[in-house]
Amino acid sequence: MREVALGEHERLDDLMRSGRKIIQNTREFCFSLDAVLLAHFPRYRSRQRVLELGTGTGVIPLLIADEVAHVEAVEISPVMAELAARNVHMNELEEKIAVKEGDYRAIRSLYPAESFDVVLANPPYRPVAHGQVNKMSGVARARHEFTATLTDVVCAARYALKFGGRFAMVHLPERLGEIIVAMHEHQMEPKRLRMVQPKADKAPNMMLIEAVVGAAPGGLKVMPPLIVHREDGSYTEEILAIYGMQDAGEET
Amino acid sequence: MREVALGEHERLDDLMRSGRKIIQNTREFCFSLDAVLLAHFPRYRSRQRVLELGTGTGVIPLLIADEVAHVEAVEISPVMAELAARNVHMNELEEKIAVKEGDYRAIRSLYPAESFDVVLANPPYRPVAHGQVNKMSGVARARHEFTATLTDVVCAARYALKFGGRFAMVHLPERLGEIIVAMHEHQMEPKRLRMVQPKADKAPNMMLIEAVVGAAPGGLKVMPPLIVHREDGSYTEEILAIYGMQDAGEET
Repeated sequence: MREVALGEHERLDDLMRSGRKIIQNTREFCFSLDAVLLAHFPRYRSRQRVLELGTGTGVIPLLIADEVAHVEAVEISPVMAELAARNVHMNELEEKIAVKEGDYRAIRSLYPAESFDVVLANPPYRPVAHGQVNKMSGVARARHEFTATLTDVVCAARYALKFGGRFAMVHLPERLGEIIVAMHEHQMEPKRLRMVQPKADKAPNMMLIEAVVGAAPGGLKVMPPLIVHREDGSYTEEILAIYGMQDAGEET
Repeated sequence: MREVALGEHERLDDLMRSGRKIIQNTREFCFSLDAVLLAHFPRYRSRQRVLELGTGTGVIPLLIADEVAHVEAVEISPVMAELAARNVHMNELEEKIAVKEGDYRAIRSLYPAESFDVVLANPPYRPVAHGQVNKMSGVARARHEFTATLTDVVCAARYALKFGGRFAMVHLPERLGEIIVAMHEHQMEPKRLRMVQPKADKAPNMMLIEAVVGAAPGGLKVMPPLIVHREDGSYTEEILAIYGMQDAGEET
């Protein structure tokens, strides 16, 4: 771990994994549970090349770096791309993780086609038309589809993935229909789906979905729901294990 | 309730609803939880005309007859269509429910286009290629896609439904991707989805899905999972209420 000087509005958080830490800017988009859940959703192999579309602070590459061969991460915001690069440097992971400032709508100019085994995306969840949003804010850009729509992210994933490669995404359950159709239209079929529920008896407010390029339709594995909180409001064992707060032996 | 003479291998069951009873033939396909859950999934209105594609014993029309204006039910097996008609007659519901022996792949010859508000289907769940099945058995026909594929049932539903009409289906979670794509290709967008889990921490083994003809994509309401059994193996209150075994005030 290299020493680091924090700038204004910056804080240092412990990622609870391999001693890694992360700088976040409290005025910009900070990662939350969805990014952590996405990082843990695919089953990685040590030879895989992974691409993250829209890395933000770089939290997902930092969490998965030990499990794969190489991670490329693209980020459209110069402020966030620089922060992600500083996080990689601080954690001495430059050999494993490469951060690129760029717009994945123009992915053809960034990476060669069909060169990744896994693509990850925690994209903006909501169409721009919904609600009042401030176009200038980085936080709004991370949440609303100003810079990339669902079709943009699916299209970029398909371009980057090898045949048989896997595209994993965290998104809102209410967009499941659109996501499955967009995947299908880009030669990807969903094979794993997990709903994330605040409690065992609540509707899901997040979902994890993984599709395979070139697969036949059918055979979607819908997993047991991931429950975040117990009845008493405390975290479930599975969430604590994912956050690295206890050892539940389920992390691989 | 009219008096009825039971044939060989027939038994009379209580539907626990409005005093209704149902004859089933133990050598043929008998209804199970999936049909009962499907019957209770849509929200009906008293003026609606409902079509069921593949009614079997006629259990779904018998369960929903009080909630809608009229139910048409089509059944390909002559044995089952006759049983369904006897069940309607026994329950004195001939004015409300019409059973027709026929093949819904030829729905254009059975019903006028766009003449229903709701279409229900509990179709065969599995493609024919999967596993060993006896082509001659009525039970196998009800479970495997010998007489109708997923596309056949979606296509028939679209033909029968008015613009804005609703198509509700019970099916396997593993086929969710194919179902959503088939619906989309037939101008239907999923708007309600409910996974059915044997227990709170188990993967779903059934799902209820409802799509609307001509709707815009997006806005899928994923409901809390329907849990069938408590930890101790007994039925949950919601299942008991659906089966009419107790009053939970949630049936409408």
